[in-house]
Amino acid sequence: MKETIGFVGTGNMGLPMAENLVRAGYRLRVYNRTPGKAGPLVALGAEQVSTIRALAESGGVVVSMISDDAALEQIASSGMIQSLAPGGVHVSMSTVSPAAAREAAGGHRSLGVDYVAAPVFGRPEAAAARRLWICVSRPSAAKERVRPMLSALGQETFDFGEDPGAANVVKLVGNFLLGSAVEAMAEAFALAEKNGLKASQVIEMLSRTLFACPVYQTYGRLLVERKYEPAGFRLALALKDIRLVVATADASATPMPLASLLHGRMISGAAKGRADLDWSVIGLAAREDAAL
Amino acid sequence: MKETIGFVGTGNMGLPMAENLVRAGYRLRVYNRTPGKAGPLVALGAEQVSTIRALAESGGVVVSMISDDAALEQIASSGMIQSLAPGGVHVSMSTVSPAAAREAAGGHRSLGVDYVAAPVFGRPEAAAARRLWICVSRPSAAKERVRPMLSALGQETFDFGEDPGAANVVKLVGNFLLGSAVEAMAEAFALAEKNGLKASQVIEMLSRTLFACPVYQTYGRLLVERKYEPAGFRLALALKDIRLVVATADASATPMPLASLLHGRMISGAAKGRADLDWSVIGLAAREDAAL
Repeated sequence: MKETIGFVGTGNMGLPMAENLVRAGYRLRVYNRTPGKAGPLVALGAEQVSTIRALAESGGVVVSMISDDAALEQIASSGMIQSLAPGGVHVSMSTVSPAAAREAAGGHRSLGVDYVAAPVFGRPEAAAARRLWICVSRPSAAKERVRPMLSALGQETFDFGEDPGAANVVKLVGNFLLGSAVEAMAEAFALAEKNGLKASQVIEMLSRTLFACPVYQTYGRLLVERKYEPAGFRLALALKDIRLVVATADASATPMPLASLLHGRMISGAAKGRADLDWSVIGLAAREDAAL
Repeated sequence: MKETIGFVGTGNMGLPMAENLVRAGYRLRVYNRTPGKAGPLVALGAEQVSTIRALAESGGVVVSMISDDAALEQIASSGMIQSLAPGGVHVSMSTVSPAAAREAAGGHRSLGVDYVAAPVFGRPEAAAARRLWICVSRPSAAKERVRPMLSALGQETFDFGEDPGAANVVKLVGNFLLGSAVEAMAEAFALAEKNGLKASQVIEMLSRTLFACPVYQTYGRLLVERKYEPAGFRLALALKDIRLVVATADASATPMPLASLLHGRMISGAAKGRADLDWSVIGLAAREDAAL
């Protein structure tokens, strides 16, 4: 049996990730805001604790997979960092803003704990299949220490240096490119349908040639099927991410007209009551605009 | 030696395509508006003629790879169709509007000639390497007849039925998706650079994972290198294509905000004197907006 890891956040993504850590031989101590969600892990032998602080032991490792900057701040102020000190590591795998990651890293460091930024690409199916792509940034020693755990969670880890914000910049950039591809396909399919073609014919050809990659294959299919439940990634969370993109772009004086368009599409989707549907539902906007 | 084919349009794309037809054993009769451009083909044994009409023989095949709707109309009114009749085939491989393709197909049909729409995806390197992807639409018999020629030009042919406009709709949709990916990468790279990362680090990771496909690999590299000459595909031609997208969208009542953004980017690039550079130069806009 390998070492004990604390794990906070057993939602859509966190649950299959935590299960893979148990399967890889780690002993797990888990916490979730809604305790029932950790049930499947307890059945696998994980110990459930009732406070975030109780996840940590001095010099140990805690992995977090939570929803946003506010949840990260809540962890940072829970007393968990103090319990990890000295010499502990917090592996923060959520999509948070680069600014929040930098602030958290400073706070951790002042208490003698390393913050490793390790956001992931992949939907829940990919998490379950250990097919996530993981972006990491922070000091080399801390990254080395948690490398075996990350290997149990994903197919490949990419190192973006020491800046605690760097991995999250890459994550935001990737999500923005993903959203852009979804919007582009949605408009393209509307044009194709209005001109006598089926979207399925078009994407079948393009996702086998110029666009033969997971994004166009997965989201092309989702857009053609227009099946938004169960949500692999909820629109509410995608809206949170595009807000981070827009805020980071604003703070760094980077006009991004396409990001602004996506922001508007997602606000509109939420306004129409679609926040809990899969975020590919933003593809409906181009159809609705065209009265399809 | 196989049959004789007429070939009109020996530009950046047409020249390597015509060369591949000669290498596949076809006897070629070529015409180009600027006669000097057909020189390399004459050296390979092709016969150069001085009018479009002289390319055709009754019941034969003419392939065209010209620049726009106006050039297609010029071919249609050159007397070439009459010379192909009866039973000839015109393989129209240019990116023209679906509306122009439908009109040309009707005109050809009334003279007893088949119009096969066969636009291609791929830059000049791909044309030279017989790696084009070809979209075809028209009656089955005509498509069957020209299949061996298309096999000499590309790696795969995709059949979109009988509507003469269908293959060109797919071509426009594909070009729009391409331009959208270029704009998205340009904005993403500007954001990454403004936040301490190199664009090359970001695309290296993403084009090996979520976006592991030719578009992101090829254009990601072009955007990172910012090398716009020699132009594989000139901005002037990309602007022509996005105008076809916007016009087809307008005619079919399909609002496409992302296409409108691309249209603006391309107009701006041309206004700045970049019409003869590679169209990936539209990626400069996001950098310039961010004062990079």
